[in-house]
Amino acid sequence: MTSTRTPSGINRRGLLTTAATLSLLFAPALPMRQAQAQTDPLPSWNDGPSKQAITGFVARVTQQGGPDFVPPAERIATFDNDGTLWAEQPMYFQLLFAFDRVKALAPQRPEWKGNEPFASILKGDFKGALAGGDPALIKIMTATHTGMTTEEFEKIARDWITTAKHPKTGRLYTEMAYQPMLELLAYLRANGFKTFIVSGGDVEFMRVISEQVYGIPPEQVVGSSGKLDFQLRDGTPVLMKLPDLLINNDKAEKPIDIQLHIGRRPIFAFGNSDGDLQMLQWTAAGTGARFMGLVHHTDAMREWAYDRQSSIGHLDKALDEAELNKWTVVDMKNDWKRIFSFE
Amino acid sequence: MTSTRTPSGINRRGLLTTAATLSLLFAPALPMRQAQAQTDPLPSWNDGPSKQAITGFVARVTQQGGPDFVPPAERIATFDNDGTLWAEQPMYFQLLFAFDRVKALAPQRPEWKGNEPFASILKGDFKGALAGGDPALIKIMTATHTGMTTEEFEKIARDWITTAKHPKTGRLYTEMAYQPMLELLAYLRANGFKTFIVSGGDVEFMRVISEQVYGIPPEQVVGSSGKLDFQLRDGTPVLMKLPDLLINNDKAEKPIDIQLHIGRRPIFAFGNSDGDLQMLQWTAAGTGARFMGLVHHTDAMREWAYDRQSSIGHLDKALDEAELNKWTVVDMKNDWKRIFSFE
Repeated sequence: MTSTRTPSGINRRGLLTTAATLSLLFAPALPMRQAQAQTDPLPSWNDGPSKQAITGFVARVTQQGGPDFVPPAERIATFDNDGTLWAEQPMYFQLLFAFDRVKALAPQRPEWKGNEPFASILKGDFKGALAGGDPALIKIMTATHTGMTTEEFEKIARDWITTAKHPKTGRLYTEMAYQPMLELLAYLRANGFKTFIVSGGDVEFMRVISEQVYGIPPEQVVGSSGKLDFQLRDGTPVLMKLPDLLINNDKAEKPIDIQLHIGRRPIFAFGNSDGDLQMLQWTAAGTGARFMGLVHHTDAMREWAYDRQSSIGHLDKALDEAELNKWTVVDMKNDWKRIFSFE
Repeated sequence: MTSTRTPSGINRRGLLTTAATLSLLFAPALPMRQAQAQTDPLPSWNDGPSKQAITGFVARVTQQGGPDFVPPAERIATFDNDGTLWAEQPMYFQLLFAFDRVKALAPQRPEWKGNEPFASILKGDFKGALAGGDPALIKIMTATHTGMTTEEFEKIARDWITTAKHPKTGRLYTEMAYQPMLELLAYLRANGFKTFIVSGGDVEFMRVISEQVYGIPPEQVVGSSGKLDFQLRDGTPVLMKLPDLLINNDKAEKPIDIQLHIGRRPIFAFGNSDGDLQMLQWTAAGTGARFMGLVHHTDAMREWAYDRQSSIGHLDKALDEAELNKWTVVDMKNDWKRIFSFE
């Protein structure tokens, strides 16, 4: 898959790895907290309890000989994607992709004009298309994400993402990543953590952007997955994307898929909705130092403000549990100096 | 999972990473082949076509600016486990574990004395137990690998492996890893490769030994997996191992699971049986430099000699295809100076 050769992503990761290794080799006597004070690794975070909780945790688990030290191999950090690492309003990015694919495929599918949910999509009525609930969604996903090889899908998704704009900001969607979270990912990696995405999004869709946007290689992306079929086409093997869902990586499936893919319990996990509750519970239940975080969307001016009543990013039970257990709840309005890199 | 803190494994990996980084930082002008000539990274391999194919391939893909250069992020290497990285005769190691578990559990299951395949196992007649084919095997695996939490299983497997001896050599089973393959794994990692196990064995069983024996962390082990269920026990989350198989990682499933877990096509793959054929085909079909290898069991004196007629490690079609396509076929008798570290 040569198309995953994104020089920017690779270089960024290479630099971080080298920087982290060099600091370990040549500055072993310099305490990490002192080094951080010299150049703030989280410049888009306001000083406050959330930032302190993060830097305090990282200092504790990386302190050789300290009571909370965790060997690098066990520094597993997992992040939800939509609403945690980038914006999910007014609609999941992957759904916009699916709607655009329906429009692009419509000339070959004339029957769609008389069939829901496709008829509504073709009229631009996205709300109407989604009124059919899960059955409608499954029809949309099957029509746009299956019936092709993994390589064909990757090319389609990559071509689309290169130009796809956010419907409200008009920015490239890849610019809708949260700058403070990009800094957090880099900061954790510089401190020996291995960062993973664990999201309900389609794993093949997320992998198209994960390395370029987040510096996270495809093998560290865990997502929902459809079944695949190995076929020989004129003697050349291909993997066909089938319409059946294999893994729906949401809620209680998240810890299950963490076990399946990673096989080690995270010591650090970040989400933003009730879909992330079980991942945070699973993380919290391990022994030793733990960090559980929620991104709370509180900034109606710079982003969106939503939680308990929202259909997208519904945050209710997880917010209660976070407050009860003193998990870190990031208040976007007060904790983040800057939300997007283009601000 | 603190039990995966195996100091030896971690240290070995740490040293290799540091060594690789240092060599990149301080010796950029020294060609890799010259450096290798000074200290042979594959001392248990005889000089010959197999060793030359490996070192030639690694030299080509790591040569900055060369026509076959592959960025480190794409240097994915996958290895089958049984018969490729360690001995699989006279019986898969995991099956010995299952038989021992049946014996240990028998006092709580008096009805097993009258039921196959358990009755045969309890009489020490392993051949008889397996005469029932796949249905018998499924009964054995369900009785010994499910109905407990992932952490309970990990502890049972780890305790067993610490003392389990190979039935023929009397050595600890963890010593039955092939020394030349351990050197190959370390050599690839020192050259920026990410090494994965892709095996039909149970993923949770293999992860117990992968870091300690091979230096491969759990998140880089792809195997067969049973379904899991997330449950709260007195408020504490556990993952219960269910009797249903989710993934049977063999034959055509191997490239599918490589896509699911890794999301990038390997450039280097090693197997030893027809169960690995599709993984090698999938690897071969990518663009750019590729390495496909088979371990051929040709040494009846030091190990075992078997291929086309064997029920374990059946190697027939893959051997034909390897010869046709000039893949590397390792002749254990002639290519390996030493097979086990204790020789």
